[in-house]
Amino acid sequence: MGQTLTEKILSDHLVEGDLTPGEEIGIEIDQVLMQDTTGTMVWLQFEALDLDEAQTELAAQYCDHQTYQFDFKNTDDHRFLRSAAGTYGAHFSRPGNGICHNVHKENFAAPGKTLLGSDSHTPTPGGLGQLAIGAGGLDIAVAMGGGAYYVEMPEVVNVRLEGELPEWSSAKDVILEMLRRETVKGGVGKVFEYTGPGAESLTVPERTTITNMGTELGATSSLFETDEKTKDYLERQGRGDEYIELTADDDAEYADEIVIDLGDLEPLIACPSMPDNVVPVREVAGEKVEQVLVGSCTNGGYEDVLPAAKMVKDQEVAKHLEMIVAPGSKQAGEMLAREGWTAEMMAAGVNVSEATCGPCIGIGHVPASDSVSLRTFNRNFEGRSGIEEDNVYLCSPQVAAAAALKGEIVDPRDLADELGLDAPGVELPDKYNGSKTDLIYAEDAIDDELIKGPNIGEVPLQDPLGSHISGETLLKMEDNITTDHIIPATSDILKFRSNIERLSDFTLSRVDETFAQRAKDAGTGVLVAGENYGQGSSREHAAMCPMYLGIEAVLAQSFARIHKANLFNFGIVPLAIDEETYAKIEQGDDVEIVDDVAEAVESGQEEFTIRVNDDWEATANLHASERERRILTAGGKLPLTKQQAEGGAAPADD
Amino acid sequence: MGQTLTEKILSDHLVEGDLTPGEEIGIEIDQVLMQDTTGTMVWLQFEALDLDEAQTELAAQYCDHQTYQFDFKNTDDHRFLRSAAGTYGAHFSRPGNGICHNVHKENFAAPGKTLLGSDSHTPTPGGLGQLAIGAGGLDIAVAMGGGAYYVEMPEVVNVRLEGELPEWSSAKDVILEMLRRETVKGGVGKVFEYTGPGAESLTVPERTTITNMGTELGATSSLFETDEKTKDYLERQGRGDEYIELTADDDAEYADEIVIDLGDLEPLIACPSMPDNVVPVREVAGEKVEQVLVGSCTNGGYEDVLPAAKMVKDQEVAKHLEMIVAPGSKQAGEMLAREGWTAEMMAAGVNVSEATCGPCIGIGHVPASDSVSLRTFNRNFEGRSGIEEDNVYLCSPQVAAAAALKGEIVDPRDLADELGLDAPGVELPDKYNGSKTDLIYAEDAIDDELIKGPNIGEVPLQDPLGSHISGETLLKMEDNITTDHIIPATSDILKFRSNIERLSDFTLSRVDETFAQRAKDAGTGVLVAGENYGQGSSREHAAMCPMYLGIEAVLAQSFARIHKANLFNFGIVPLAIDEETYAKIEQGDDVEIVDDVAEAVESGQEEFTIRVNDDWEATANLHASERERRILTAGGKLPLTKQQAEGGAAPADD
Repeated sequence: MGQTLTEKILSDHLVEGDLTPGEEIGIEIDQVLMQDTTGTMVWLQFEALDLDEAQTELAAQYCDHQTYQFDFKNTDDHRFLRSAAGTYGAHFSRPGNGICHNVHKENFAAPGKTLLGSDSHTPTPGGLGQLAIGAGGLDIAVAMGGGAYYVEMPEVVNVRLEGELPEWSSAKDVILEMLRRETVKGGVGKVFEYTGPGAESLTVPERTTITNMGTELGATSSLFETDEKTKDYLERQGRGDEYIELTADDDAEYADEIVIDLGDLEPLIACPSMPDNVVPVREVAGEKVEQVLVGSCTNGGYEDVLPAAKMVKDQEVAKHLEMIVAPGSKQAGEMLAREGWTAEMMAAGVNVSEATCGPCIGIGHVPASDSVSLRTFNRNFEGRSGIEEDNVYLCSPQVAAAAALKGEIVDPRDLADELGLDAPGVELPDKYNGSKTDLIYAEDAIDDELIKGPNIGEVPLQDPLGSHISGETLLKMEDNITTDHIIPATSDILKFRSNIERLSDFTLSRVDETFAQRAKDAGTGVLVAGENYGQGSSREHAAMCPMYLGIEAVLAQSFARIHKANLFNFGIVPLAIDEETYAKIEQGDDVEIVDDVAEAVESGQEEFTIRVNDDWEATANLHASERERRILTAGGKLPLTKQQAEGGAAPADD
Repeated sequence: MGQTLTEKILSDHLVEGDLTPGEEIGIEIDQVLMQDTTGTMVWLQFEALDLDEAQTELAAQYCDHQTYQFDFKNTDDHRFLRSAAGTYGAHFSRPGNGICHNVHKENFAAPGKTLLGSDSHTPTPGGLGQLAIGAGGLDIAVAMGGGAYYVEMPEVVNVRLEGELPEWSSAKDVILEMLRRETVKGGVGKVFEYTGPGAESLTVPERTTITNMGTELGATSSLFETDEKTKDYLERQGRGDEYIELTADDDAEYADEIVIDLGDLEPLIACPSMPDNVVPVREVAGEKVEQVLVGSCTNGGYEDVLPAAKMVKDQEVAKHLEMIVAPGSKQAGEMLAREGWTAEMMAAGVNVSEATCGPCIGIGHVPASDSVSLRTFNRNFEGRSGIEEDNVYLCSPQVAAAAALKGEIVDPRDLADELGLDAPGVELPDKYNGSKTDLIYAEDAIDDELIKGPNIGEVPLQDPLGSHISGETLLKMEDNITTDHIIPATSDILKFRSNIERLSDFTLSRVDETFAQRAKDAGTGVLVAGENYGQGSSREHAAMCPMYLGIEAVLAQSFARIHKANLFNFGIVPLAIDEETYAKIEQGDDVEIVDDVAEAVESGQEEFTIRVNDDWEATANLHASERERRILTAGGKLPLTKQQAEGGAAPADD
């Protein structure tokens, strides 16, 4: 049986498991990327590994989210990230150089390689045949430490593209059509492989618009085969030698097939407040627009801004709206400036900003209250723009520029008739000739030690699991405690994400404000909870902070899946207790695990005996795989990775 | 006796008083300008006047400070300002179009006219012979209502410039030399008139760099005579017809004379953290720099950025620093883009930002902790950059660009030797050909009513002074209460400056958190304080909020000068009491003014009798000029202006 392209790349990188959809596999990671809001914790974790250098072929640190630098903590983060990249052998992209996905695509994305990134839109270079997956910070740190990345083997779905895009339709309309059909849950556990003559007709920048926004389908990743277009793109980027031909086998077996005829696509738009709330633009034409934003990792490339620039040239944006263009990369911005397009956009009334993600996540250019904002971005979740009850529509640059000129939503075909506009071409430049000044290559690094501002803390590293666990029940909690209860994400607390010592002061504060102080005073202790402990967001800080405060075990009736994994990852023993035991234990009780804990965990023992107040005993169960037991025994995933790296154990064995 | 240029312009506009230094004069205002952080309150006050249209020849509203719009309140403010400008006949400059002083200079500044602006750097167009003064928001609203502006007649000082600037020295060095000699207090109560062959040698943009930063000398304004250079500049801006020749008389008598030989000036720099902490650049050469910012109303013009761009062309900024260029106006940005300089700067590693004031006041691009930031701005007060304990140096674009290339402070002459750089010329463009798309002229306005977001409140308007004042002593305070005590300026409170209802909740919260609620419950009342009540910043909110809460009189042992004026302006009666009375009154006491208050204030009565708890009496004194009594009687300056406008009384009579 032939293989899909996904299977081929995974086979090449497989270090554990087999390619059965739904089963966990471990794969080797060739490249990693980090951005500025997740990168600080990645590097602090990597620092804790005590390695000299990132073990992946390539690591790249970008500064793109907080580049307006509203707080010295942002600027300190950027300086720290530069120092970390320099110290550990990663490339560093300065603030202003652009969005990680765009700059990575331009400079480093390579067909056939695996890429793990601490940003959900990491799959972007799938448009060049790179298998790229978004992951949490610790996964990236571990990958840089030489560890494998574990993921459920996805189903591979073939998206067969027929025909060619008509004038005024664009790659954005392809992915909006996918969202319209498949919804934001349609890609969960899947990789979409785009094939067919329609796929061949698309340029690499068009392909990456599609793969980028595959994230909104919930997909693990999205992929295009490589071909002459890929080679051509890499050559124009001066990287033709990185081209390899990659295709699925003719007899590859896909889990499913979706067919889209590009010729049928008309300009589409995602209405507030979900990316799959997609309708033809004409259905919502006439809606007054107060803000138009062009940019982002989805549509911030040279080839994305260019059609918008062509459309507004010699025109004026409507007086009642603001149009802001933030190019996705310095390369794009510089080329647009050099060719005169920046001046033309300015003359038309566009505010040309720095290359940044900023507004896409509510950092800058927040819409006015009770107004419509039209954006070429990938997400319009309510409140993401920085204001609750926003009205954000997602569309192509062509639709965005048309709205800017008209002052209301309009199908660009209709506006073209009205104003006599020609459909703007999207031809690639002969050569992408932006400078690389803002990219500090690992080999040119100027730092050899970390520079930490006052808000950048240390990652606490747990000792290997000991034989003896005992301590006070510092908190007894109800059912359904969320990670938001454990570590709230309000902005006053969020800014301490790089600073576990400071962040841990807020641990479980929503349950009991005195908890953090009591835990510090006690030095060690256990938590008791009811059913479904740790539900909600996947934030690893919800395990890291209790660990920092000395919590050694959590006794709960049941655990939420991801949080339980995080407890393993940070060396806290998750023990299941029954309803009767839960009812009997009181806050303040002394709990002792009677067994030799380290030995029992290592040996695969499931039943543990707990002794309460030296008075009564009960059974608690440890449900853990062999891999999880190894993690726990080591004191967590970081210490395990560290041991393996030091001991020369096969990194694949994590 | 001949007249200085200042005296000539003031004579032309005088409506009250005579030109005796130190005496109050009233002058007619031809033009007003507002920016976005002060403009909302100006327009709310103007709205309260209930007039159809701004009465000045020209009013212009700019959006320049909060243009990164990181809260919907900023964007709402901008929309409100557009609607206010449209409704009341002002020009409106969109966010991204640039800094008020730059855009005003390019489009509206006119020799011989008076300009009042709600920003301290309003004197910028003095470089074109316009007499421009910064003032508080209410002053601007009153001027737009047709009222005169009252100011102490300044002393006029002649600054005689000899010689010509050497290569690598610039206009910035002229004003830094002034600051070095005269200090930040040296200009208080003065206008500096720049004359002599050195003045004639300077272009208008060079002159406006000097007049702009006269504000840092504490000067009321700064002026250049007009000449061929002025005419030439206006012609290149397409406004040659607005030129008039304006010179001081040959036998003008100046209060003082300062002589500077431009030929002697070497590159200077203001060290942290005061603009007058000026030394030659060579004295601090070698200091490592992590951030370089070029822009601002002082050095953000086309002619300011151009030399920096020429210097970095084909070079690379140091890897460990960030260089950000925020042009002062869209005109400058667009021309730099059109001529290729933007691309060259980007290629050199510069992050080219929107046209904004932003970073100058800590909005965006906050320096990293424990780092040096070099800026072409005008102020380096500690903490102004957005981080406490900052290290901000002020210098010319040439010195800034040199530091960016070298990575440390360096005299550009020394760097020129090292790198073989030519001194960049500062020739004017043949024609300033930026577009005007972002300037919505009053006649093209699209709004005819105010658009208020949820954070934009109403200005409370006081009734005329009544006959009877009595109420509870809601708070008894110590000596030296500051306006920071009365209305704190921390960022959580600052954002409500447009919303008196919301802001007033914080009134005197630093003295007593229960005050605002108690005042609301009481409905009316009085305040009692010791010596020097209301010292500190001039913020009018410190009177507006107590007025809103129903405070009718403040009984204090003494008042700070500006706050006392603000109390008059908002209709609160400031009564002086002696030490014995202060000691005897307790918080909670009922206080009644026995006299017919309105009649007594109007008739010029100084001694008032207060009756406390219906038990004992004391004397309180009202020290007020005839003008202040008229304001108080009317219920404040706004109601008075409104009366006069409605009654057709001479506006000059305020």
